[in-house]
Amino acid sequence: MAKSSKSFIDLLRAPDSPIDLSEIPTDSHPGGHSKKAAREALPELGERLAALQERLFAQSRGGTEPARESVLLVLQGMDTSGKGGTVKHVTGVMDPGGLHITSFKSPTEEELSHDFLWRIRKALPGAGYVGVFDRSHYEDVLIVRVRNLVPPEQWEPRYGLINEFEQELADQGTTVVKCFLHISRDEQKDRLLARLDDETKLWKYNTGDVDERKLWPAYREAYEAALDLTSTATAPWYVIPADRKWYRNFAITNLLIETLERIDPQWPPADYDVAKEKARVLES
Amino acid sequence: MAKSSKSFIDLLRAPDSPIDLSEIPTDSHPGGHSKKAAREALPELGERLAALQERLFAQSRGGTEPARESVLLVLQGMDTSGKGGTVKHVTGVMDPGGLHITSFKSPTEEELSHDFLWRIRKALPGAGYVGVFDRSHYEDVLIVRVRNLVPPEQWEPRYGLINEFEQELADQGTTVVKCFLHISRDEQKDRLLARLDDETKLWKYNTGDVDERKLWPAYREAYEAALDLTSTATAPWYVIPADRKWYRNFAITNLLIETLERIDPQWPPADYDVAKEKARVLES
Repeated sequence: MAKSSKSFIDLLRAPDSPIDLSEIPTDSHPGGHSKKAAREALPELGERLAALQERLFAQSRGGTEPARESVLLVLQGMDTSGKGGTVKHVTGVMDPGGLHITSFKSPTEEELSHDFLWRIRKALPGAGYVGVFDRSHYEDVLIVRVRNLVPPEQWEPRYGLINEFEQELADQGTTVVKCFLHISRDEQKDRLLARLDDETKLWKYNTGDVDERKLWPAYREAYEAALDLTSTATAPWYVIPADRKWYRNFAITNLLIETLERIDPQWPPADYDVAKEKARVLES
Repeated sequence: MAKSSKSFIDLLRAPDSPIDLSEIPTDSHPGGHSKKAAREALPELGERLAALQERLFAQSRGGTEPARESVLLVLQGMDTSGKGGTVKHVTGVMDPGGLHITSFKSPTEEELSHDFLWRIRKALPGAGYVGVFDRSHYEDVLIVRVRNLVPPEQWEPRYGLINEFEQELADQGTTVVKCFLHISRDEQKDRLLARLDDETKLWKYNTGDVDERKLWPAYREAYEAALDLTSTATAPWYVIPADRKWYRNFAITNLLIETLERIDPQWPPADYDVAKEKARVLES
């Protein structure tokens, strides 16, 4: 396949609703890059991503009017879809001092006593940071919906609330990049078995994983609803074919680079007199 | 110089009190490694560090009795001594999902209304994490002492309070690795001027840096007091000659590796019946 000249932002954006996830392949590689080409390109892409991140951070720290922009990468997907691997391999090339990573677990009692966005707001990246959510507020319309953890009257309004929330983030300068890591049911089976076959991976396996797996069709439906109802112009969803780890990492790296290039962060000017400061340092 | 067979933990431990920092070179490289040898060794050291970090994280997550161990790297040093560079280059090789990095700034009004350890406790790494403090509770006996931000009756007892606090951390399974990044006054001058000469570094410069620089002798005295009074068997200080960035990164990488090797984290056993789970996955 020839390499596409389309951006990954365009290539991977979730299609118009109604979305049928069974029609989107999990093992394709939109853009037409080969595994070899992607692997070879990755070091240079990593450097570009790290350089853009540094400039994003810098512009929030310097100048007379520090910039407010930040990025929030939201990772969602079934167990074993590669959320943790993405954190490690994709965001791992950036300066960890400018990352703000949160892995959301089952909510605590205190978190449950608040609005579902309470714990999410506390974990938002500050100006200049790249935030990463390994699971997110979307759990509140995914497992919560599938498992009937609250009645429909409570989860149904959440789609609208999420859209309002993400609009608010955009207004404050946070670009939200929402990635659904799309794996096949067979691939999940292989990955769960691989965990059970490797003593260095046993800790990643939970007996509850099979229980969730049995609800695959209900989860697919819940993901389709989330993509249909919350893929907005402001904060679109990207569907990442994730059966191939190399493609997942390559695609999300490119998505982040393109997102940061659109923000186009600039080295901030000095908010002091450079010549005068040089003289002060020399005298000191 | 021949390569030393001593561990970096032994090589770099702060000498017995009273410490005279002017007697410790800032541009040496204890251990006798050359720049070239260190550069060549670093990729493999990075892999070892990342592998140890993963095991530390894993053992806190699996098994019937998850381990409590964590590591806390404390970075202190004058402006430009390389705290941020250490975060980027040393901890940057680890999985950011297992890092918990905090950069402490001037305390907020809320923080000031609490005990000085309040904001520190909130930033402690959880079990399995490698925490990093870019500045720390030591600011409360450094700038606070030098600048008389509180009266001596308030900062003097803090040395003892810090030792008790760090003992408490050790008792809970947190190994604290305290690194003083030791640069010369001349090196700082060069680095400040370099920031003023580079448009990509202007944002790192603050006019207040020169004011602090003028207090160099008072800071040296405050650092010596901190090292004298808080370098304990439980949580010793390490003095890192930091004029040479390659050595700083090489030394701290080795310190972290040795620290983790002493913790010796283990892949946790399954807390479930592996054969039964395999059958469940296969059937699902």
